[in-house]
Amino acid sequence: MSKSGEKLAASGEIKFAPCHEYSAVGPMSGIISASMPVFVVENETAGNRAYSNFNEGLGKVLRFGANSPEIIERLRWIRDVLAPALRNAILACGGVDLKTLTAKALQMGDECHNRNLAATSLLTRTLMPALVKTCPPNKLEEVASFLAKNDHFYLNISMAACKAILDAAHGIPGSTLVTAMARNGVEFGIRVSGLGNEWFTAPAPYVKGLYFPGYNDEDANPDLGDSAITETCGLGGFAMAAAPAIVQFVGGTPQDALNYTLEMYNITLTSNPAYTIPNLGFRPTPTGIDVLKVVETGINPIINTGIAHREAGVGQIGAGLVRAPMECFVAALHRLAETIS
Amino acid sequence: MSKSGEKLAASGEIKFAPCHEYSAVGPMSGIISASMPVFVVENETAGNRAYSNFNEGLGKVLRFGANSPEIIERLRWIRDVLAPALRNAILACGGVDLKTLTAKALQMGDECHNRNLAATSLLTRTLMPALVKTCPPNKLEEVASFLAKNDHFYLNISMAACKAILDAAHGIPGSTLVTAMARNGVEFGIRVSGLGNEWFTAPAPYVKGLYFPGYNDEDANPDLGDSAITETCGLGGFAMAAAPAIVQFVGGTPQDALNYTLEMYNITLTSNPAYTIPNLGFRPTPTGIDVLKVVETGINPIINTGIAHREAGVGQIGAGLVRAPMECFVAALHRLAETIS
Repeated sequence: MSKSGEKLAASGEIKFAPCHEYSAVGPMSGIISASMPVFVVENETAGNRAYSNFNEGLGKVLRFGANSPEIIERLRWIRDVLAPALRNAILACGGVDLKTLTAKALQMGDECHNRNLAATSLLTRTLMPALVKTCPPNKLEEVASFLAKNDHFYLNISMAACKAILDAAHGIPGSTLVTAMARNGVEFGIRVSGLGNEWFTAPAPYVKGLYFPGYNDEDANPDLGDSAITETCGLGGFAMAAAPAIVQFVGGTPQDALNYTLEMYNITLTSNPAYTIPNLGFRPTPTGIDVLKVVETGINPIINTGIAHREAGVGQIGAGLVRAPMECFVAALHRLAETIS
Repeated sequence: MSKSGEKLAASGEIKFAPCHEYSAVGPMSGIISASMPVFVVENETAGNRAYSNFNEGLGKVLRFGANSPEIIERLRWIRDVLAPALRNAILACGGVDLKTLTAKALQMGDECHNRNLAATSLLTRTLMPALVKTCPPNKLEEVASFLAKNDHFYLNISMAACKAILDAAHGIPGSTLVTAMARNGVEFGIRVSGLGNEWFTAPAPYVKGLYFPGYNDEDANPDLGDSAITETCGLGGFAMAAAPAIVQFVGGTPQDALNYTLEMYNITLTSNPAYTIPNLGFRPTPTGIDVLKVVETGINPIINTGIAHREAGVGQIGAGLVRAPMECFVAALHRLAETIS
């Protein structure tokens, strides 16, 4: 257990949307209701916590706006079976060191936003001995099967870990560090360390990417969801050089993936020595978006993300790439100038 | 289940060393005795089978020449607990599609010789739902813990899969394809498709690499083991571009890893469209060492491998890189010329 890392804890806290006000990162669509279980991630260095709901998988899922009876049924199963089993397993392990797990996954082709196969597999393999002890025997096969089939299960945990890191950097007077990027399908917003709880928004752009069979641009909703917290923390699009195979899911070439990461070094305040990219000679991931550098360079932060259908009830229809709108950063910079002068 | 792939089967076959005579790939040191369980890999296209023993882990293990009571105890546990549990789980799954699993692992930073973290994690996650059903409940935690801790568990399965592929290409008159490379700690030998069961040998070279703490060059035995069957099949050193993080285990830089793979395209007859390398724009792995091309270009096949202590009983002391000796290929080429003239 890393003392300076993020730790997956298990407890009964429940938080409501709007997510970022409560240090929670949640669904792209739908809400986290009072009866839904959440993961609790502790920032052991700073002492703060962040929360996320459970990842349901791809396609027809609540977080992309689907809401049919089988989806409600799966959410109930997550509440009644999966969450208690994982809670007990996580408690039995004394927590899971997410810093080390994410670092390993970055060496294994994940960028921990839209590619989480390695992290999910490592987490499953790590928790399984404890799950065997703590899960009711008649539920163990269901739990193992769900974890074996949902390659994106780690996504929400990754989001909460990023949130726990960034919340600790929020509220530093004069700081130009972006501490959140979030989208609600209509607007794209950023929050800045030195500017309190004000959000700087612009119209949400459309995502360019690959569609699941049967869908195209005309079906897509503008960009939405809390998951850009991963890019804000140096993962996702910022760490795409670590995950060249992701281009099969979001489009482009492995060289594009490399280039996105290299470009992001121009707009970040630092890099994260805990998270390194083998393809770049173990160079640390570009971390900490700087409002000033974004405006100075004209480079918009890159985000890879899922695409939701514009009509409620359908769910996820693809995945691709999108840039954070420059207007948000320009507006934040003007406000920063006001606070200093 | 891929009909044209390799499949992990489960049965009771037992084979003796010398391994390659029985389509088995086995320990670097020690033997596979009659009471030891083996994995059975079926080549569904060609109908042949290959076999391997179970991977015990790193350090003090039989396959690197260690032989203390705790090692014998672990081998007994593998025979009595792990093997029956896995046998039943594999049977319950109807086999495991190794072609797909290896292909996925290559997208996740494994080269399936000395880096098997992704493949082992995927295999564990895939088998766990069946294991829950088939393993005696009081043994499940032990089995899950062993699989959670041994990051190299897939190595021996990878070896047997490669053996099953290459055996199907053996015995083609006039063919210059290398169908096996193996080392016994004294000699390095190759077998060629068009030259029957004759081995062409040269003194085994020393491995250059990284040592575990407390060991150095003077402790090392010359190169040994059957695992170079993976390189013979286009994995391991030949697929190192897929596994840049492996250089932390075997030495060198990620650029070296890329260069080894690029170099190997010069001495291979083809490339394998089932196994692709994201870092190289999903270029297929260089596959099928050609005796003629090796001699013509003067490029020795690259192998990454473990280093055993030169004294029996100590076990693995490091890992590194070694080149197959040119003399083997020159001798084989002379014999090929004789068979044709």
